[in-house]
Amino acid sequence: MSPASQSLPVETVLETALYAADLDAAEGFYGGVIGLTKVRREDHRHVFYRCGEGMVLIFNPAETVKPAPAGALPVPSHGAKGQGHICFCVAEADMDTLAERLKAAGIAIEADFFWPNGARSLYVRDPAGNSVEFSQKRLWGIDTDEA
Amino acid sequence: MSPASQSLPVETVLETALYAADLDAAEGFYGGVIGLTKVRREDHRHVFYRCGEGMVLIFNPAETVKPAPAGALPVPSHGAKGQGHICFCVAEADMDTLAERLKAAGIAIEADFFWPNGARSLYVRDPAGNSVEFSQKRLWGIDTDEA
Repeated sequence: MSPASQSLPVETVLETALYAADLDAAEGFYGGVIGLTKVRREDHRHVFYRCGEGMVLIFNPAETVKPAPAGALPVPSHGAKGQGHICFCVAEADMDTLAERLKAAGIAIEADFFWPNGARSLYVRDPAGNSVEFSQKRLWGIDTDEA
Repeated sequence: MSPASQSLPVETVLETALYAADLDAAEGFYGGVIGLTKVRREDHRHVFYRCGEGMVLIFNPAETVKPAPAGALPVPSHGAKGQGHICFCVAEADMDTLAERLKAAGIAIEADFFWPNGARSLYVRDPAGNSVEFSQKRLWGIDTDEA
């Protein structure tokens, strides 16, 4: 980092969080359908997945709004309700395969369109109702690779 | 992707979303304090930032729960209330600088501790109350670089 910069030395997003009351259903979707690699599950509190160089964390908000118990690490509470959003990066050449596999898994495709800049976005709902999008880096002018 | 695999061709997380009713306050934090690069702001609906190879999207849920207007691209509605969570990746060597700059910006540090595997996490709140963490990839055994 530049010594002249006063912005924080933040590099990337390490954790993306979504909320779901039914973690078994969330596992069926994020592990079973999407195929992310599960890193950890804790009862009805959370299930964590690896995705690329980061993590996708699914939390049950009824549990995570509780303060950390005495003696545990002082992890701050959080917890949201309603429909969140995530977008996964999928290469343009894989979008048709993606659509086919979602349909084969019985997942309804809510929207599938091209943005004015040529990126294609496909949207489904996870079992908790979160809006799950699949698109390419070109959607945001991030041109470091073919996705 | 392997032809034998039936998991989806998902590579990374492209968009991480958080919710905030006051986007001016959100800009002061994510742009001003953290120093992310703003990509787009739309009135009171959203403000979008680039972070590494992905995007951090801050939405006003009162606007995004509304269906897409007639004639617009059919972007599905979403919107959560409560305290969400995000974790930014910061190199171990930059964590002290991070803590100093947060304090200098008047941001209260809610927690700052080491996990059993040696990763250090520091937590603050954004103006909307979302739990914002800063940690290293080693927290999750992601050892591809020094962060």
